[in-house]
This record gives sequence, structure tokens and C-alpha cells, in this order.
Amino acid sequence: MGASSQKLTAPSLTGRAGGESSSTYCFTVEPFYVDFTGHLFLSVLGNHLLNAAGNHSHDRGWGIDQLNEVHYTWVLSRMCIELYDMPQQYEHVEVETWVESVMKLFTERNFAIRNADDGHIYGYARSVWAMIDTSTRRPANLLTLHDGDILRYVIPAEEKPCPIERYKAVSPLSPTPTLLNIPLIPNYSDIDINGHVNSVKYIEHVLDIFPLQKFEHQRIRRFEIAYKSEAFITDPLHLLCQETDGEHHVEIRKNVGSEARPDGEMVVQARVLWQES
Amino acid sequence: MGASSQKLTAPSLTGRAGGESSSTYCFTVEPFYVDFTGHLFLSVLGNHLLNAAGNHSHDRGWGIDQLNEVHYTWVLSRMCIELYDMPQQYEHVEVETWVESVMKLFTERNFAIRNADDGHIYGYARSVWAMIDTSTRRPANLLTLHDGDILRYVIPAEEKPCPIERYKAVSPLSPTPTLLNIPLIPNYSDIDINGHVNSVKYIEHVLDIFPLQKFEHQRIRRFEIAYKSEAFITDPLHLLCQETDGEHHVEIRKNVGSEARPDGEMVVQARVLWQES
Repeated sequence: MGASSQKLTAPSLTGRAGGESSSTYCFTVEPFYVDFTGHLFLSVLGNHLLNAAGNHSHDRGWGIDQLNEVHYTWVLSRMCIELYDMPQQYEHVEVETWVESVMKLFTERNFAIRNADDGHIYGYARSVWAMIDTSTRRPANLLTLHDGDILRYVIPAEEKPCPIERYKAVSPLSPTPTLLNIPLIPNYSDIDINGHVNSVKYIEHVLDIFPLQKFEHQRIRRFEIAYKSEAFITDPLHLLCQETDGEHHVEIRKNVGSEARPDGEMVVQARVLWQES
Repeated sequence: MGASSQKLTAPSLTGRAGGESSSTYCFTVEPFYVDFTGHLFLSVLGNHLLNAAGNHSHDRGWGIDQLNEVHYTWVLSRMCIELYDMPQQYEHVEVETWVESVMKLFTERNFAIRNADDGHIYGYARSVWAMIDTSTRRPANLLTLHDGDILRYVIPAEEKPCPIERYKAVSPLSPTPTLLNIPLIPNYSDIDINGHVNSVKYIEHVLDIFPLQKFEHQRIRRFEIAYKSEAFITDPLHLLCQETDGEHHVEIRKNVGSEARPDGEMVVQARVLWQES
């Protein structure tokens, strides 16, 4: 959402009205949703995190369906996932989610990802969301909506820590030599109910630029993604990738080659950190 | 599996040993698994059908994990899905599955797809499976394996009908003018735990050749797919599509342009029948 200048360093709340709680949702790792190493696809884990977010919000009266009635909607701005290991085929996984902070224009929602049978922690995730007015497409003030009801659900970091770093803003890549020649044309299966390229599919497309061999001996330790602007079925997407100090910066851009903005417009920025598996 | 000459017209059983049963599995239509019209992606429905098949087999001692121990595995040969309508976002869906017949080299497994809340029938599906010996890659005789134990689970069509037609074998397309110029190169997210392109991803790739506009006013009434041979990450895949009498025949081929077989080798054959939505 082009909001990288917004500071996300500390929750704005010092007191709470009570009623805050986390919720936990379970799923089984299905055979068609594991990769060739037998581990859950990161994009599918992303889907489960976003479902947990949607269910947790809905159960508190802040679901997208409830907001749509009053012309508001949630927009995912950033997500970081850090994994000590990745669930494997047939394992039972639970995702716990809670709200860590609410500021005027953003709220931070965290996740813990565990084995539902033995409590083993696979990892954690953080996400940052804005709310927009669907008629004006402008951001809404979260602190005044519904008389600040959302503040009731905050569990501050001192009480429930999420032991991974926040999203780290990165500079755009220099596009010249690394722009892939063949753009990715969004297809039917990329498009969500809002007519945009689906947030989960971007994760799939980012990882699909790496050769299969990369995943044979390495696994993703940390994945960060920022959703900067929306893309539609008519937008050819260009993927850029640069490796710096063992981590990969990946960008997805639209309108590349246009007269006004030959380098294109940022749609997604991602950072992928690997480790030996 | 190149087995289109095998007749699949009638169950071979006249008597049963008892113990047969169907099983029902539920899922919720998740927001990232619906298309721009708000209806479940057919590929995701395919995933749920295959999960139901896997669970039903497993619960009867015929799961892939159990078979692997004795060097056998199930191979999906064909699937037809016929839909009166498609589940929508947040709906609760149940998939009932049962075995209709077992022959020497194939078994037929059927599915009913219903709304789990009100029993509304969305549609039905049929599938045909072979079993292979994983050491020789040759088909196994289902009637003699485990002393014919699998016959106990058959519910013949007279007792439990599946009111859709069986898979209809179709002739290969004439490849000359319709071969897409740019082959589809399988990526990381296409490859399953066996190192092959994933059966569910083929459904996605087949539907992705249609423009988004096609889905605006039409929906898929019937979808047929035959899995003819396996493809790997190293196989560029060529997609062919031809419309005949309002239905689309789609093929995915590998090794196109090779000296021995310039027209390539059939990987997947699909037939898509549409109706106004």
C-alpha cells in the first residue's frame, strides 16, 4: 500500500479495556500441498495464516464481510514468516493469532505456528494491516472506528511476545540487468474475488523463480513480503531478483517499459533468507 | 497411464463379502481458494476429492503410506467432475466417497459433493485408479493383492448410483496449428513429493489457458481429465486446445519437437464442457 514511511516500532496502547484474546485454528498438511521434499508449501502456510486472521477478526465483529457492510475492508500490507522448521505431510498444525498493537493507520497481528499434537514450535509470523474505505480507497482511522472497539483485542508484546523481528524496509533494486525477459501474465487462477492478483499466489510466484535444486539442500528460514500496490489480470508482471549477502531480494513490478515509468511500479517486495536444511 | 484401451463398462463383482461403506469428509470454502466470481476453484475441489480418496483408502488399510511399505502405490488414471453449481466462499462442503467396482487392473471410485448444512447436491465425480509395483513400475493385480481384501469395500452401482457418465476416451488433437508457442516450464510449486508435476496443478494449468472473460458468463458443467504419463521439472510442457461443438479439448504434451516424436508425448488429456452461468 506504499506505506513504507509509516513507523511500526511500538504499540500505541498503554492501557486496555479487557476482552483481548488469541484464537487457535488447526489444519492437516495435505499431500497435494507439500513440495518435493515433503514439506508444506510456504504459500499454503500463508493461506492458513490469512484464514486464521480472517476468522479471528470475524469472531470479534471485525471480519471483512462485516466491514464490507459499512464500506470498509482490511488490506494486508506486510507479512514476515520465520520458521525453525516446516511442517511435513500429514502433520497436524495449529496457528494461534492475536493482535499486538493498533495504531491510527495500521494494526499488527502476530502468529505462532505449532504442531497440534506435541506443541513443537515451527515458527512465528507477523503481519501489518491497514483498513481502507472502499468508496474513497483512502485509509481509515482504526482508533476512532466503532468507538475504538478494536483496542479491546490488543495483547501487548510485554504480555505475549512474538520472538521474531519486524518487517525490514528495503531499497528497490536497480532494475537494469536483472529484469526477467518474459513477463508473468496473470491467469484465471491468480485472480481473487476482488479482481486482484491473490496475496497467496504472489508467494508462489516469488518462490517459483528459484530452481528446484535450491530447495534440495536449503530451506527458507525467513520470508518477508510487502504488498505495495494491486495488480489485475491485465497487468503483465515483471520479476526481479538479486542476491545480496546470502539473502534474495525479489520484486514484482507492473507497467514496466511505460514512457512515464520505464522501471515500472512496485507491486510486491519480498526478501528470502535461506539456511542449510 | 496410457491405459485407454482398458474397458471400464461394468463392475466385475457379483457378490460381496460385506464391510463396504462410504465415508464423508468436510471442508469450508476458504477465501483464497475462490475465483473472481466467488466460486471454489475447480483445482481446489480436485484436491479435496483426492484427499477424500486418500483418507477413505487409508482408513481401510489401502492408503498410499501403507502400500508404500509393500512397494505398491495408487496411480490416478482418470477423473470426471460434473457440477450443477459450484460451492461459494465460506460454504461448508462435504465429499462422500465410495468404491464402485474393482477389476484386475483398475478400480472405480465415486464422489458426491454436497452442501454440509442443507444437503444441496453440487455435483458428482468419478475416478479410475490403477495400482503399480513401485520397484518394477508395472501394474498390480487388484483382485489378488491381500487376498482380494479390496473387494469387501465395493458398493455396486445398483445399490449406490453415481448419476454421471463415465470418462469418455477422446482422440488426440492434430497438433499443427494450435500448439502454444511458449511452453510451460514446471516450477517448484508444480512438483509433488514424488518429483512429478502434481495432479491438481494440471487442472489449474488446463483452466489457465482460458481467458478470464470466459468465466464471467459461463461455468464449467463437466470436466474430464486423463493422466497419461508423468512429467518432471525438466519437461517443458506444451498445451494444445481445440473447441469442438461447444466443448474444449485440452492436451498437455512433453518432448514436443524431439526427432523421434515431433508431436510429443501425451501427458494429460482434458475435456471441458461449459454452460451459461
